[in-house]
Amino acid sequence: MNKEAMKLRLDFNNMMANLIGEKGISEEDFAILEGKIEAAEKAMVEKRANGGMDWRDLPYNQDEIVEDIVDYVEANKDWVESFVVLGIGGSALGPIAVQQAINHPHWNELSKEKRKGYPKLYVVDNVDPEKLVALFDVIDLETSLFNVISKSGGTSETMSQFMIIKEKIENELGKDAVKKHIVATTDASKGTLRPIADEEGLKSYIIPAGVGGRFSELTPVGLLPAAMCGIDIKTLLEGAAYMDEICKIDNTFKNPAHMYGLLQYISMQQGKNISIVMAYADGLKFIADWYAQLWAESLGKKYDLDGNVVNVGQTPVKALGATDQHSQVQLYAEGPHDKVVLFMGVDKYRSEITIPEIYGDVPNLGFLGGATHNKLIHTEQMATEYALFKAEQTNMTLTVPEINEFTVGQILYLFEVATGFAGELMNINAFDQPGVEEGKNATYAMFGRPGYEEKKKELDARPEKKDKYII
Amino acid sequence: MNKEAMKLRLDFNNMMANLIGEKGISEEDFAILEGKIEAAEKAMVEKRANGGMDWRDLPYNQDEIVEDIVDYVEANKDWVESFVVLGIGGSALGPIAVQQAINHPHWNELSKEKRKGYPKLYVVDNVDPEKLVALFDVIDLETSLFNVISKSGGTSETMSQFMIIKEKIENELGKDAVKKHIVATTDASKGTLRPIADEEGLKSYIIPAGVGGRFSELTPVGLLPAAMCGIDIKTLLEGAAYMDEICKIDNTFKNPAHMYGLLQYISMQQGKNISIVMAYADGLKFIADWYAQLWAESLGKKYDLDGNVVNVGQTPVKALGATDQHSQVQLYAEGPHDKVVLFMGVDKYRSEITIPEIYGDVPNLGFLGGATHNKLIHTEQMATEYALFKAEQTNMTLTVPEINEFTVGQILYLFEVATGFAGELMNINAFDQPGVEEGKNATYAMFGRPGYEEKKKELDARPEKKDKYII
Repeated sequence: MNKEAMKLRLDFNNMMANLIGEKGISEEDFAILEGKIEAAEKAMVEKRANGGMDWRDLPYNQDEIVEDIVDYVEANKDWVESFVVLGIGGSALGPIAVQQAINHPHWNELSKEKRKGYPKLYVVDNVDPEKLVALFDVIDLETSLFNVISKSGGTSETMSQFMIIKEKIENELGKDAVKKHIVATTDASKGTLRPIADEEGLKSYIIPAGVGGRFSELTPVGLLPAAMCGIDIKTLLEGAAYMDEICKIDNTFKNPAHMYGLLQYISMQQGKNISIVMAYADGLKFIADWYAQLWAESLGKKYDLDGNVVNVGQTPVKALGATDQHSQVQLYAEGPHDKVVLFMGVDKYRSEITIPEIYGDVPNLGFLGGATHNKLIHTEQMATEYALFKAEQTNMTLTVPEINEFTVGQILYLFEVATGFAGELMNINAFDQPGVEEGKNATYAMFGRPGYEEKKKELDARPEKKDKYII
Repeated sequence: MNKEAMKLRLDFNNMMANLIGEKGISEEDFAILEGKIEAAEKAMVEKRANGGMDWRDLPYNQDEIVEDIVDYVEANKDWVESFVVLGIGGSALGPIAVQQAINHPHWNELSKEKRKGYPKLYVVDNVDPEKLVALFDVIDLETSLFNVISKSGGTSETMSQFMIIKEKIENELGKDAVKKHIVATTDASKGTLRPIADEEGLKSYIIPAGVGGRFSELTPVGLLPAAMCGIDIKTLLEGAAYMDEICKIDNTFKNPAHMYGLLQYISMQQGKNISIVMAYADGLKFIADWYAQLWAESLGKKYDLDGNVVNVGQTPVKALGATDQHSQVQLYAEGPHDKVVLFMGVDKYRSEITIPEIYGDVPNLGFLGGATHNKLIHTEQMATEYALFKAEQTNMTLTVPEINEFTVGQILYLFEVATGFAGELMNINAFDQPGVEEGKNATYAMFGRPGYEEKKKELDARPEKKDKYII
C-alpha cells in the first residue's frame, strides 16, 4: 500500500477570517496565542515521555497481543455465529465505529459465507430490558460468544448483563460452557472483573492501566471485536502509527491534530460551543458517535488545572451528509454562528453506481442522467460547504482518500491527539471524568447499596417537586 | 384501552428557578411574557382556522386513506419480503422513528413468521453509493416493493434512486413489473413525480399540499411504511388526536406542547442554544432524530417575520440513556450551562429481565442481584436527573406510560405543536426552509444544470483556498 496516497487531509480554509470573513479566525488570533501553543506542544511531548498518555504508544507495543487475538479468532470463528459485545461508552462506541466503517452496512443480514466465515456482531450497551430480551430472539446461545468489557468491573450496566448471561449459559448449556462462551477484557490485576475472569477460567485480554475508556479503541477493547469480524487490526494499528508520525510534527500549523485542537480552542473562546461532525459517507457515521464521547467527556469540565470553576466544553453533534442536508443544514446555514462544522469526505467510495439516462426532458431529473451517485454526493458536499461558507459559518473538511483499516486507524488517532492538545490549550485534565460520579453515587444510594447512606439522606432532602410543574 | 392511563406527562420542575436555582426560569420570566404568550396562543388558533397548519387536522381527515393503505398492505404483504423506502428528511426520519419505537429492534433479522407475515423495512435516505450497492446484497428484487416519497419530485437524492431502481426493475423483471414493485407518495397534482406516477400507472398516495416534509409523518409518508410493517396506524392517529385535545387547552401553563415551546423560548433567550433529547429507551432513540429535523429546520432561521436578521435556533442533540451516561453526561454535568436536557422516560417497558443473585459478596455487584434491568434503567434515569439538578443544568422529563402506537402518536403530535408554538414566540416562520436553497442551487450549478449559469459564475468567483490551510 502507498501510505502517502492514503494520508488524511485537513482543509481549514473556511475557518479563516481572510476567506470566510469576520466570523473566522485571523492570523492575529494565532499570533496572540504563540506562547500558549508552544507550551501545549511541549506539554504533549513531556506528558507522553512521562507516561501520562499511554494510549499514544498503542500502535507500537501490541505485536504479541495482535498475534494472540488473531489466533483466538482463528480458533473460534467457525463455531461462532454471533459475537456479542457487552460494553458501554468507549467499549461500545469504538467497536461499532470501526465495524460500520470497514464492514458491510448490513453485515448481520449476510450469510456466513458472505461474511467470509466471520460471525455477526451485536453490541449490547444499554440496560433497556426490551433490547436484551430481543437479542435472544435473534441469537442462539450455543453459537454465541460474549465479550464482557469493563476495566474496573464496576460498570453496573455491563456487569449486570454479564451476570444475566453467565447464569443463562450455566442453566442452558451447563457450568462448563461459561469458559467457552465468555471472553473478558479488563484490567491486568485491579478491579472486580479480573478475579472473576481468573476464577471462571475465562480467556481474557488486558486493558492497559494507563488507558482510559474513550482512548481504548486500539487496545483489545476494539481490536478483538474488529478481528472477530475479519477486520485487519494490524493495518488499523499501522494507520494509527502513520498518523502518530504526523502528529509528532512540532509545528502546530503543519500538524493536523494540533491544528484541529487549536482551531476548536479559538472557536470556543469566540463562543462556538457546538462541534458538528458531518460525514459524507454512511461508513463514517458512527465515527461521529465515537468522537462525541471523546470530545464531550474529555473537554467538558467544571474546573481547570488551577482549580478555577470554568464550566467549559463543546457539545458534539453527529450529522450525515447528504441526508441531513434535509434535516440540519437549514439551521447550520441560517441559525446562530455558534458552531464549527467538520465535514468528513471520501475521495473514492468503495462502490460506484450510475444514474440511468432517463427522463432527459424533465428539468428536475434530466441533469442527473448519466452521472454517478459518487459524483452526486461529492458535489452535494462541496455545495453544502459553499453554502456554509456563504453564510459565514466556520467549517473545515477532513478528507479520507478511501475508507479502510489504514485510514480509520489514522482518523481515530488524529482525533485522540487533537483532544489531548485541546485539553492542554484549555488548561484542563482531558483524561478524567469526575462529573459522572454524582449520577453513579445517586444510583447506588437509590438502590440502597451499603455505604451510600449519606447520599441517600442527601437525595431525600432535595426540594420537593411541585404538582403544577407537571402537566 | 384506557386513554387517560396512556397520557404523556411533562415534568418541568427542574426548569424552574425555585427548584434548580438561578440558572432556571422564574415565575417572573413568565409574567413578563404574558402578552406574548397570549398572542402566540391566539395565533395558533387562528393559523389553524385559516389553513396555515393543515398537519393539525391529519388525525381526523384520513379515514379513507387509512382504509386504502390497510387494503393495499393486505393485498401485497404476502409477496413482499422487503419494503424499501426511498426518501430523505422527514420521509425517512418519520418512518424510521415509528418503526424503531413500535417494532422489534432486530426486525429485519426475524423470520417472516416472527414478523407476523409483514416484510422487512429498509430506508434508503442517502446517496452514498456504498450503501445502495450493499442493499442489493440483502434484498431480492423480485420480492421487493419500493416506496418512492417526494412531494415535489425534485429531490435529487430520492429521484435518482428511483431512476436507478426503475431501470433495474425494467431490465431484470421486465417493463410491466414497475407497476407492481413501485408505489409513489407525492403531491396530488403538482411536481415532477405525480405525472411520472400516473404515466407509469403506479399505485400512489398523496401528500397534502399544506403539509411540509417534517410535519408529514402522519400522512401516507409515514402511514404506509408503518402499516406495511404491521403497525396499527389507526391507533397512531388516535394518539395524535388525543394529544390534539390536550394541545387545544388555551392556558399554556396546562398545555404541555405550548409549555415545552415556552420553556425552550425562554431558555434560548437566556443563551441556551442546545436542545438535548435523552431517551431512556432504545425504542425512542430515533424519535430524537425525527425531533432534530423538526426542531432544527423549523426554528433555525435567519430572519424574523419583520425581516430583521436574527440568526436564531437551537441545535438539537440526540442522546440515549443509560448508554450516554458513559459518553455525554460528563459534559452535561460539568460543561457550560448552555443546554436544556429533555429526558424521555418510560413507566413500563414491554419486557422484563432480572439480574441473578450471584456475586453477593462483591460490593460492586452484590447490590444488583435480584433487581431487574427495568429498575436499573429507571433508577439511572432518576439519578442522572438528580446529577443535572445538582449541577444546575436545566432539564425536564417527558414520561411515556408505555411505548405503543397510541403514545407514539401523542409524542409526534406534541412536538409538532410545540415547534409551531415556539415559532410563534420567536416571531419566525416555522414552516419554511429557505436556507437549504443555497446548497441545492450550488449543486445544480456544479452539475452544469441549464439555468444555473449565473450561480456557476458566482461559484467560480469565490476566493481561492490557500495551500497553507490544507495539511
